[in-house]
Amino acid sequence: MNPSRFPALLISIAALGVSLPATAQFAKPEDAIKYRQAAMTLMNTHVGRIFRMANGRIPFDAKVAMENADIAAAVSKWQFSGFVEGSDVGETRALPKVWSEMDKFKAAALKSNEDIAKLDAAAKTGSLDAIKTAVGAVGESCKACHDAYRKE
Amino acid sequence: MNPSRFPALLISIAALGVSLPATAQFAKPEDAIKYRQAAMTLMNTHVGRIFRMANGRIPFDAKVAMENADIAAAVSKWQFSGFVEGSDVGETRALPKVWSEMDKFKAAALKSNEDIAKLDAAAKTGSLDAIKTAVGAVGESCKACHDAYRKE
Repeated sequence: MNPSRFPALLISIAALGVSLPATAQFAKPEDAIKYRQAAMTLMNTHVGRIFRMANGRIPFDAKVAMENADIAAAVSKWQFSGFVEGSDVGETRALPKVWSEMDKFKAAALKSNEDIAKLDAAAKTGSLDAIKTAVGAVGESCKACHDAYRKE
Repeated sequence: MNPSRFPALLISIAALGVSLPATAQFAKPEDAIKYRQAAMTLMNTHVGRIFRMANGRIPFDAKVAMENADIAAAVSKWQFSGFVEGSDVGETRALPKVWSEMDKFKAAALKSNEDIAKLDAAAKTGSLDAIKTAVGAVGESCKACHDAYRKE
């Protein structure tokens, strides 16, 4: 692991915020659910653009890739903070396993954040090949977490 | 205006992205609508926490205020990028005036971003009084834009 990424990872761990009661952060569980779904929408949008460039579905533009990777890296820091205690209710595709296996879920979330940080670093090089490799890893960590913790 | 905020404002202008066709950024108008609603959810969450501290509804915590203001400042940079050409359709509370008065809408959006940057600066001082003043201005610019451009 690149030591220069340590600060970002520490922020991510703090931002997961899963040890705090929901009331400390969200007025009600529904707010936490809406929040994390919104964060996923943003993540999907920005990583999705890089995927489409990597797959040749839209033209590669190094600047646009970097802008989108930067935003994805920012969003990753709070993407999981809505999975608070008591928010395993209501309209959500999150499986109960998120809460019953919280340590594993956190580890998967951190892996995803780490891969997004690598994608951000790759995008800064401007190399489409580096981006393709990094976005492939992001896709795998997204999928692993969705397969394990999200309803079909 | 504080010259040190110039770079942030330039990024905001670029991120408004309203002169690009929707297809350059979103696969379909619905994606743009979902994106901007998600960004508003995030903004509402983070500014809302600072409001509740300013109103004494939750205890003031300078560190938490700063963290939330930092995220609001980040989100503000792309909060309006979903108001792309052609996305004045479907399930949206955005009034047609957003597009027919785009210059005015952009100005209101930039005012809002400027007020959020001031809130972020105020939060960094750790002064609840400074935060109260700044969050009041944010509330006014949010409301002005909602009153003018959002369906009741």
